Amino acid sequence: MTAQDEADRDRYYMRMALREAARGRGSTRPNPMVGCVIVRDGKVVGSGFHVRAGEDHAEVVALRAAGPLARGAEVFVNLEPCSHFGRTPPCSQALIDAGVRRVVAGMIDPNPRVSGRGLAQLNASGIETTVGVLEEEARRLNEGFVRHVSDGRPFITLKLAVSLDGRIATRTGDSRWITGDAARRDVHRLRAQSDVVLVGTRTLRADNPRLTARDGETLLPHQPVRAAIDARLGLPDHCGLLDTEPSPVLLFCGPEAPRERIHVLRQKGVDVVVLPADDQGQLVLTELIAELARRDLQTLLVEGGGGLGGALLDLDLVDRVLLYQAPLLIGGAEAVPAIGGMGAATIASALRARTVRRETLGEDVRIEFDLH
Amino acid sequence: MTAQDEADRDRYYMRMALREAARGRGSTRPNPMVGCVIVRDGKVVGSGFHVRAGEDHAEVVALRAAGPLARGAEVFVNLEPCSHFGRTPPCSQALIDAGVRRVVAGMIDPNPRVSGRGLAQLNASGIETTVGVLEEEARRLNEGFVRHVSDGRPFITLKLAVSLDGRIATRTGDSRWITGDAARRDVHRLRAQSDVVLVGTRTLRADNPRLTARDGETLLPHQPVRAAIDARLGLPDHCGLLDTEPSPVLLFCGPEAPRERIHVLRQKGVDVVVLPADDQGQLVLTELIAELARRDLQTLLVEGGGGLGGALLDLDLVDRVLLYQAPLLIGGAEAVPAIGGMGAATIASALRARTVRRETLGEDVRIEFDLH
Repeated sequence: MTAQDEADRDRYYMRMALREAARGRGSTRPNPMVGCVIVRDGKVVGSGFHVRAGEDHAEVVALRAAGPLARGAEVFVNLEPCSHFGRTPPCSQALIDAGVRRVVAGMIDPNPRVSGRGLAQLNASGIETTVGVLEEEARRLNEGFVRHVSDGRPFITLKLAVSLDGRIATRTGDSRWITGDAARRDVHRLRAQSDVVLVGTRTLRADNPRLTARDGETLLPHQPVRAAIDARLGLPDHCGLLDTEPSPVLLFCGPEAPRERIHVLRQKGVDVVVLPADDQGQLVLTELIAELARRDLQTLLVEGGGGLGGALLDLDLVDRVLLYQAPLLIGGAEAVPAIGGMGAATIASALRARTVRRETLGEDVRIEFDLH
Repeated sequence: MTAQDEADRDRYYMRMALREAARGRGSTRPNPMVGCVIVRDGKVVGSGFHVRAGEDHAEVVALRAAGPLARGAEVFVNLEPCSHFGRTPPCSQALIDAGVRRVVAGMIDPNPRVSGRGLAQLNASGIETTVGVLEEEARRLNEGFVRHVSDGRPFITLKLAVSLDGRIATRTGDSRWITGDAARRDVHRLRAQSDVVLVGTRTLRADNPRLTARDGETLLPHQPVRAAIDARLGLPDHCGLLDTEPSPVLLFCGPEAPRERIHVLRQKGVDVVVLPADDQGQLVLTELIAELARRDLQTLLVEGGGGLGGALLDLDLVDRVLLYQAPLLIGGAEAVPAIGGMGAATIASALRARTVRRETLGEDVRIEFDLH
């Protein structure tokens, strides 16, 4: 086998491990999604994924499946095996005990308690290690976990359904529907993959969104926490968001919100968080984000409006802008712009993406604009 | 030959005729670009194009080249042969006299003096005719001529260099450069293909554009008439547009422009047109467009700003919006929107395109949004 063949083979099994890992989507929090594939003599002799925090890690599941066949085998895992006692014993020791020959990891565990120590322990026991196979995909799969562990905040995606001239609503506030069916289905899929979905006050008022992840009227298996900003808690009781049946509801209000109203909402099962306001009376968004992090919510989907998105971009808190761009022109000096806030002063200081991915979705174009 | 083979063959020679026609670009005005290819026994026996108004039509050039070989031949021409005496005798008669067997036309001549009569004359003389081969391409080649003849106004293209969030400048007015080299080169190519280029007052002030068609600093062979709106004619004498050396300069001012200033500019060779103003003091844009038509300017490229473009869209005068979309986000509630004016009240009434063509240009995407 040439070096190229070996690299291809490593990627082949890593892709398998990533697919295994993704089976845990929605249930592993606050843990990352991890999948593991054990290969001996060109055959997969064991595989597994991490299902839920507190339960076995992927490596342990796969080692159990492989049994004695793990001896001398190669192990493919999308995240560096842990080296510390958490809710379960360290996987590095389990791998050493099983006598595996080689461990291939997609990426180093950014958790400061691991961060290379897992691989170091394996090396110290004479196990060959390779790291960085399909690293981009591995990072992307756990982008929420990585951001949470590295920066103490969720991975933030700002979703915008825009016209070609960058408007998210007409001058009268009409926005239904800018994009087509395929794009709207994609948003529901994305909600189902997010820990929390957030909208600002104006969107809450204008659109009365439920923020649930649906296929038509059917709820998808995973539902995000549904959050909104409503400084004075003036939203009506009958609004779609306040139905706490599908998933928890989180409301952020300001110091001036009536105590009685907070009490009533909490009685209804709504999680109400009072945020501090700055000198201009604006709620402090960094506190909002910190609250999400405290709740171990690792992926945040911001669904508008332009003011909230603009404010988060101004604070450099957005990791990805996801545009669903529809082939229409709204026009009008008073139409609602996609991104409010301060914005860039010069073209040189405008936001440029680390990567841009474009994909056609029906008549619309889906543009992933990754900032970090 | 099957019917499909024949259709392919017709398109093959029509494409050749269209290429011939395009050789007249920039010099045929107010006539259309016309190319003609004469085919006998599978061989091109003559071809030609219309070079300049008052000179021979394409059919006549091609017939001359073919000589006696035209007898019994097939003639491919992108526009229906004319049937009337204009500056030259009718081509329909020349084709009849030459004894051709069949005439294939890309499209009917929209000129009400022709409009099917050319083909009817050929039919009446026993010549087989086919019309509508590569009609879309034929219409596109002469879109200025077609619009001018049909509606008494130029074909209007609104060009916008926008960020993904639909801004053409930051909140400070900075706009250089939103798009990359390839997109900017494409704009210069487009200027060279336009009869007239127009900007509004704010663009004139903010960007001081020359509006010439250049490759670097070298002027391209064809230059558009360069037009701007400047209600009070307050533009400084040294501004780039006022250099009448490369091509004529056309300034539109309002009734309140100082007579002395109009006089001075006219002395400098600038064509100054005083437009009426409406009740709100806005210059009447339909009058501006009518003035361009009176000057036989058939293709207008509007290069900004958002206010002018928006006003023209509100009047339903724009035939094509051409967006050069750069992979950056400008943001900011006060940034300059691509399209001002009134705009659509509802999404249902937003502008939708007849066709949308997307093309990658370096890092940017070129989007042709055809409205009519």
